[in-house]
Amino acid sequence: MINRSDLVALDSRDPLAGRRDMFVLPEGVIYLDGNSLGPLPASVPARMEDALRRQWGRDLIRSWNVNGWIDLPARVGARIGRLVGAEDGSIISADSTSVNLYKLVCAALALNPGRSTILSDTGNFPTDLYVASGAAELMDKGVRLMVVPPEDVEASIDAETALVMLTHVDYRTGRLHDMASITARAHAAGALVLWDLAHSAGALPVDLAGCRVDLAVGCSYKYLNGGPGAPAWLYVAPRHQAAARSPLTGWLGHAAPFAFDLDFRPAEGVGRFICGTPNILSLVALDAALDAFDGVSMEQVRDKSIKLGDLFIALVDQRCGDLGFTLGAPRDGRSRGSQVSLRHPEGYAIMQALIAREVIGDFRAPDVLRFGFCPLYARYTDIWDLTEHLLQVMLTREWAQERFQRRAKVT
Amino acid sequence: MINRSDLVALDSRDPLAGRRDMFVLPEGVIYLDGNSLGPLPASVPARMEDALRRQWGRDLIRSWNVNGWIDLPARVGARIGRLVGAEDGSIISADSTSVNLYKLVCAALALNPGRSTILSDTGNFPTDLYVASGAAELMDKGVRLMVVPPEDVEASIDAETALVMLTHVDYRTGRLHDMASITARAHAAGALVLWDLAHSAGALPVDLAGCRVDLAVGCSYKYLNGGPGAPAWLYVAPRHQAAARSPLTGWLGHAAPFAFDLDFRPAEGVGRFICGTPNILSLVALDAALDAFDGVSMEQVRDKSIKLGDLFIALVDQRCGDLGFTLGAPRDGRSRGSQVSLRHPEGYAIMQALIAREVIGDFRAPDVLRFGFCPLYARYTDIWDLTEHLLQVMLTREWAQERFQRRAKVT
Repeated sequence: MINRSDLVALDSRDPLAGRRDMFVLPEGVIYLDGNSLGPLPASVPARMEDALRRQWGRDLIRSWNVNGWIDLPARVGARIGRLVGAEDGSIISADSTSVNLYKLVCAALALNPGRSTILSDTGNFPTDLYVASGAAELMDKGVRLMVVPPEDVEASIDAETALVMLTHVDYRTGRLHDMASITARAHAAGALVLWDLAHSAGALPVDLAGCRVDLAVGCSYKYLNGGPGAPAWLYVAPRHQAAARSPLTGWLGHAAPFAFDLDFRPAEGVGRFICGTPNILSLVALDAALDAFDGVSMEQVRDKSIKLGDLFIALVDQRCGDLGFTLGAPRDGRSRGSQVSLRHPEGYAIMQALIAREVIGDFRAPDVLRFGFCPLYARYTDIWDLTEHLLQVMLTREWAQERFQRRAKVT
Repeated sequence: MINRSDLVALDSRDPLAGRRDMFVLPEGVIYLDGNSLGPLPASVPARMEDALRRQWGRDLIRSWNVNGWIDLPARVGARIGRLVGAEDGSIISADSTSVNLYKLVCAALALNPGRSTILSDTGNFPTDLYVASGAAELMDKGVRLMVVPPEDVEASIDAETALVMLTHVDYRTGRLHDMASITARAHAAGALVLWDLAHSAGALPVDLAGCRVDLAVGCSYKYLNGGPGAPAWLYVAPRHQAAARSPLTGWLGHAAPFAFDLDFRPAEGVGRFICGTPNILSLVALDAALDAFDGVSMEQVRDKSIKLGDLFIALVDQRCGDLGFTLGAPRDGRSRGSQVSLRHPEGYAIMQALIAREVIGDFRAPDVLRFGFCPLYARYTDIWDLTEHLLQVMLTREWAQERFQRRAKVT
């Protein structure tokens, strides 16, 4: 039997406990939706004020040079690179995850022509599937998207597979793919791999270089806490950089953008995947947000993340065992990202009732309650308190109130 | 002969004079580069602080609903729409100009198949040409980009033209295309038109609906003052919205993004051209910046813009006539955007010397000194003072100093 006092003790011994002060978390809120939108890092407002008043307001156009705006996509990319095991000069931060996916799907199909399928799975985030279909349709080379259940991915890779495109951590279940194994299997069959690390970067160790991953994209507003709609990022392995071409040939991917040539010549390296003018204010916020990872190892983060998830599962078993919940996530922490999902037929209303109590997770249709555990600010006692609120919501049937039954536009 | 006192009088009678207080302009700086990066609107820092601390920090993920984040691309788009004569519901603000160009070039080629050329001109901004070539190449339907001198555009439109793609105001010379005439000529030949309004929106009246323009894109960090790399915007005429398809089929262009279907179904209307998650912090800055246009008519802006440009040309004639400058812009204000360019073999060094005096324009290779005149904050006396500094730089040969001869990375 676990008691709350055990968790107070765990918090007091937690080597990451001090990191919580690097975030602005509203009093009384238990925030478990950092896998959808990370909270405000405390460093962001002052850095934004500086970017607004000194850099934009005072230095004006000169800031492209004197304040290094022009290098921000690469500089922020390098900081993300450390968190995902990327080689130097292989990541830029720019555009949205969807736009970056498009660039890399098109690049991959051109790098590996003469094959007929992009292989993905039903656990992928829908935008990945939409973007890959859209790209294949526009290129019109007879390539089609094949979508199989997650457990069938490895067996479905064959000589017709041009690209294996997967999200590492399933956004609903938290199920973690084996990046090393799938990548090796794809390469053995002559396929390229493109990993979407939306729910991985900042949540668990990733070894892009060690796994010999070809291409990757990721989101910066979840575990990286870069702010709503923060610029996403993309990775191109150094061995592909000379041959890989972006379909989005914007001026800042040009070898000499300020020569204003009429013809496009791609920049050296991953910089050719920059397209338009980078969004400086959002990059400044993301850059500041990444300070929270300075001096932290992803192994430390992973260790606490698994403990938080295991604790939640144990507490649900111990305290909510007969309330109709089923576990919607792998029980083994090593097979799970940094979230735990529960399933319940009344999941939507239950989540609304929790949110009304300022316990903020989110809901994904048809019946998934998602709880993200971010080790930089989540406490072990938060998990106890979450379970307590969940228990109260169920015992009082608070969720059955009419106001919790109405579906909002964004759930 | 014009005297400075005449201009003091003009400033005192200027109906737009009060707008200058809506911008943060550093003491002593004469800012004439708002056609590259508009200055900081005074309303932005407080609005950003609210977006950071209250919306992101306190309301967290709930802000997508309670603070209307999800509607920002359409809401900001509607405000830009008023400035460019667009129908309701025909503009969204998202992504970069380059990415939006790509979406619309692909959409146009699909709307008007069976023709072999995209027609553009040598006065277009290079990214437009790069993006159009890239899109045509990827689609691989035998469409090629044809680039002619600006004056040959109308005569080059023929039965093979799928799309006429032009920038309304030339970024170097300020030369203004006749939107109504070219659009009519294109339609008569069965071609579609795509106008890039990067140097038009917020600078002069545009009548997208009245000219029956098909497609348009624009930049928000020049005359709209949205901040460095602010989200761009795109326009799709209502009559094309049902048939036009974006190649970038990201989840927020889906008819029901939160249903998480595995197949893409485009949203109704121009919203289908949204791709990934919108960049909220940058949209908030842009939204605040647009307040500076509330209650101002674009005819008022145009009237002052032409007067400022004409004044500069007259003063250069009067005071700098024998210093080696040639006019790099149309002399007739009606054929010119809101900038005036001068050409000089030592243009680069002369501009550096002006910038050292805090008179900020910019330089475009090989010999163009650009001066942008934004009627919301430029004063008639600024034009006198600009000319005075230019005269001093030339008379003292300040530009010949070694420090002004070195080329910086971004010019």
